[in-house]
Parts: sequence; C-alpha cells; structure tokens
Amino acid sequence: MKPRFAIGVDFGATTVKTGLVSSAGKILYQNKLPTNGHSGPSAVIKQIEASVRDALSRADGKKTAGIGIGSPGVVDDHGVVKSPPNIPQWDEVPLARTIGKIFPRHRIKVENDANAAAIAESRFGAGKKYPNFLFVIWGTGVGGGIILNNRIYRGPTGGAGEIGHISIDYNGAECNCGNRGCVEAYIGQRYLSQRTTEKLKSRPDSKILELVNGDQSKLEPMYLAQAARQGDQLAREMLTEAGEMLGVAIAAVMNVMDLRVSIIGGGISAAGDFVIEAIEQSVRSRVLKPLRPGIKVLQARLGNDAGILGAAGLVL
Amino acid sequence: MKPRFAIGVDFGATTVKTGLVSSAGKILYQNKLPTNGHSGPSAVIKQIEASVRDALSRADGKKTAGIGIGSPGVVDDHGVVKSPPNIPQWDEVPLARTIGKIFPRHRIKVENDANAAAIAESRFGAGKKYPNFLFVIWGTGVGGGIILNNRIYRGPTGGAGEIGHISIDYNGAECNCGNRGCVEAYIGQRYLSQRTTEKLKSRPDSKILELVNGDQSKLEPMYLAQAARQGDQLAREMLTEAGEMLGVAIAAVMNVMDLRVSIIGGGISAAGDFVIEAIEQSVRSRVLKPLRPGIKVLQARLGNDAGILGAAGLVL
Repeated sequence: MKPRFAIGVDFGATTVKTGLVSSAGKILYQNKLPTNGHSGPSAVIKQIEASVRDALSRADGKKTAGIGIGSPGVVDDHGVVKSPPNIPQWDEVPLARTIGKIFPRHRIKVENDANAAAIAESRFGAGKKYPNFLFVIWGTGVGGGIILNNRIYRGPTGGAGEIGHISIDYNGAECNCGNRGCVEAYIGQRYLSQRTTEKLKSRPDSKILELVNGDQSKLEPMYLAQAARQGDQLAREMLTEAGEMLGVAIAAVMNVMDLRVSIIGGGISAAGDFVIEAIEQSVRSRVLKPLRPGIKVLQARLGNDAGILGAAGLVL
Repeated sequence: MKPRFAIGVDFGATTVKTGLVSSAGKILYQNKLPTNGHSGPSAVIKQIEASVRDALSRADGKKTAGIGIGSPGVVDDHGVVKSPPNIPQWDEVPLARTIGKIFPRHRIKVENDANAAAIAESRFGAGKKYPNFLFVIWGTGVGGGIILNNRIYRGPTGGAGEIGHISIDYNGAECNCGNRGCVEAYIGQRYLSQRTTEKLKSRPDSKILELVNGDQSKLEPMYLAQAARQGDQLAREMLTEAGEMLGVAIAAVMNVMDLRVSIIGGGISAAGDFVIEAIEQSVRSRVLKPLRPGIKVLQARLGNDAGILGAAGLVL
C-alpha cells in the first residue's frame, strides 16, 4: 500500500513551517519557526532538520512517503537552491542533498515555493478539476507556476512561471529586474503603493489611512486588500485597476500556452470577489476568441497552507 | 529498418506544396499548386490527394513513413482543422480522417503550419542543437511554435504558440483579435505599413517608394525587408524598431517558460542580420538576469522549405 503521509516544509525568508500531511491533503500537525536567515544556510538547515524531526515524531511510526520542501529562489533539477531573494549567503545551496544526508531513509524533493503552491492547488485546492492552469501568487510581488497535465511545468532549468515580469507596456516604468513595464511594477508593492499615495491626497476619508495609522510609508498592498474587504471605495478602485492589469499578463500566457484557467493566490486575492472578477473580465476580453468560452479565473483555496501542502505533494 | 522517406504537405491559403522528404531532411521531389480555396474543403482535399499521389509515385516503391500535413488554423489532437484564416468554409474539417480514408495504408498526421515550421527547424534547421526554443514566424502577421524537449508543445487543444497576440502595451492600438497593443498590431502588415507611410512623407528618397512604384497602398513588410537588404536607411530603422518590439514579447515567453533560444523565420527575418541583432539585444536587456547569459536569437534556416520539411517531420 502507498504511504498516506508525507512531511511538507514551507521554507521562506521569514518563517519555516513544517507539517505532517495526509494524502487527502489534510495537515495533521504543523510547527512554525522564525527563519534564522542571517546566520547563513547551515543555521537554516538545522532549523529545517529540527522541524522535520518534530513533525516525523507525530507520525506515530507510520511510513511516510518522504520529505518535500518548498523554497524561494530558482530550484534546479537536483534540488539545488539558487539565490533566493531576501535570504543572504544562499547563492547555491544543495538543499536536497544536504537534507538527504540528514534523513537518509526518506525520499527528498525540493521545489520553488510558487511551484509548490501551484501543486497544492492542483492536488488539493481550486485546481483539482483542472489538468492545465496558470497559478498566480499576488502579494508583495507577483509570481506563479504552470500546471500542465496535472504536473508542474518547471522549464529546462526550473525557472518557469515568472509571470510578474511580463511587460504590459514596453515603454513603461522601470522594474527592478531591468525590464520596463513589468506587471509586477504596476501591481506589486512599490508602484501600487505609490499610486495609492497619490490618490489619497484627494481622498482623505479613505479607510486605508486608518489602517496605516496615517503613516503612508507603511502602505502595503495587504492594507489595500483589508480596506477593500471593509468596503473602502478607493481600495476597491485601485485593486480593480490592478486586477485588470494582471489580466493583461495572464491573457498573454493563455494565448501562448493555450490555457484557459488561472488560479489566483496570495494576500491580495483575498480582497474580495471583485478582484477575481476584474481579472477574469480583463482576461476574457483580451484572449483570442477560441479561448474565450473556456476562460475561468478562480480564487486559490488553500491560503497559507498551500506551501506545506504543495511541499508534501511533491512526494505524495 | 525505419523508413527513410515521408510525404510532407504544406497547405496554405495560396498554395499547396507537397514533397518527398528523406529522414535527413532533404526534399527529393516537390510539386506546387495554387490553392483552390474558394471551392470549399472537398476541392482542396482533392488537390492534396493528387499532389500526394504524384509525390508518392516518385518514391519508386520505397516504403514511406507516412503523410504529414501542415495546415493553417488550429489543429486539434485528432487532426481536425478549425477555422483557418483566409480559407472559406473550413469551420471544422476532419482532415486527418479524410486523408486517411484516401490513403488507408499510410500513417497520417496533421499539424498547425507554424508548429510544423517549428518542428522543421528543430529536426533539420537552426534548432537542431537546441532541445528547447521559441520559434517565431514574422511576415504579414506574427505566429509561432514552442519546442520543448525536442517536441512541439501544442497545448491542451492544439492552439499554443500565439506569440503575435501578446500585448506589449495594455493601452495600445486595437488589434483585430479584440485585445490592445498586441505585438502583431505593431510589427505586422497593417501598423508597420501605416507607420512607414507616415515617415515616408519626410523621407521621399527612400528606396521603399521605388519598390512599390510610388503606390504606398502596396506597402507590405516584405518590401521593407527588401529595401533594407538593399541598404535603405528608413527600412532599416523601421525594422530595427519593430525587432525591438518583437523582443519584448519574446522576453515575456522566455521569462514564463524558462527558455533561452528563439529562432526567427518568415519573410522579415531575411531582411538582414541587423534585425536578428535588434531582437536579440531587446530580449537580452529584458529577460530576468539568470536567463541573460544563455540568450540566443537565431535566424531560421529552412526558409520556404520549412512547411514541407516540418510536415514530413511529423511522421518521420
């Protein structure tokens, strides 16, 4: 009989979260640590080791399918993690091999975190019914993963899914990546906050100002999502416009890859149905006609659990 | 021993070209007919039948691997051709099944023509060394095909590769497809000619005017390519700018699919090395940093033979 449990590790710049997951996608137990990122890779690997041992101890001796790890950065076919943003000293870390030496009796798989979240939605979430879809994480930045035939499309070197750096205006704003007009440069942290700050000058009654206690330097897309959920008009306008822009980039991917379904995760997707509707309307009006009847934009279902579930899904 | 010959049919709105092709990618014999498109599918199918019989008769009784057909329009997994542009009455034609009934002893495969050309470059042309690349046809319009692991990526319904309808300006010019700012709307027939016409007002010495005998309504991108080859400055400027725009769309695909190589075919790619260089420079400056060292933009090698060769490659 196939093992029905696996360990999933969601390793990020701020936290290491590890869970014991059933093959049905239930997290039976989980722990959480603040990432000790500034002490370098070996300190973080020790944290992962400790959290995995803890989770394994809750498996009551049941056979597990292995240990899956979702990591920021590009992850190559051998589980080497390359330059994860916001974690110093990680130019190239052979994470799969290192964890494999610590847990030699377990199967180890390491995957990029956005890809892991896409796998989670495919196996256990909003993508269960859809063999092919584009998954988008929209939070501080914009990332993604592509599911083809129920499997992750990693690309030749594991770097696929960078939807945030599709240019939607070739003459547009400069992005940190060096390109111009990247969709992330319009709907990610920096520019979305800048544009909102501009608009707040003439809309001093907006709830957004309350949420940041009047300090606009604290303005993050998450506060826009929160204000929108509370019915704030300006927040809804900003996110509707941003959703339309995201739709431009999604439509490009759908045209090129012949896809019809997109699943939106990350903090902003939780701002309300209106965001998902704005994205869907934009995508549908922009894709080629034969694709239009099948267009579906759905909200991700697994929220913060997607990381652990997708990591476990790598070995389940 | 594997058969070393196949029949390749390159069926388009203007001509039906059919060849006897060796497994090394040599066209040993070919014929060519003007497409009798206005008489409906059965007339065209009769043309294909006659041209295939003719090519088969040149095989001297050697065993052939089958008959491959490149067709405009979307081609589904069962070889049904859907709505090829510029050919009336072809809403849905089961081309593979129909040709299979006529030649029951031969294996039949039908594929979209841009995909067939991509396969040709992969098997026999500029893509031989590259297991993964984006193929672009740039002529009157902009189309493409994606090669992954030496095979064509068709997408779930066979519609993949529509790079021409990536928007490079979400507020840009309206495209026939309903989207705004599609790269095809900038570098395809209509807009490229319009912009050139504008510029010709202040550049009456351009060779372009000679080539169209002073009649600017005849201005096609092909004439720009021809003028550029003859050293015309305005033509080179227009195509350099257009190449930079094409690079924006190619960079988007490379970021999303983790690709590094693009091969450019179609009439305009033959305007000169400067076009390929303009595209490459644009792509390299716009893709994510980890991709940059590997970026290669190459000119297609097979020219007008790509259709027949790719079609034969479907069954070889």
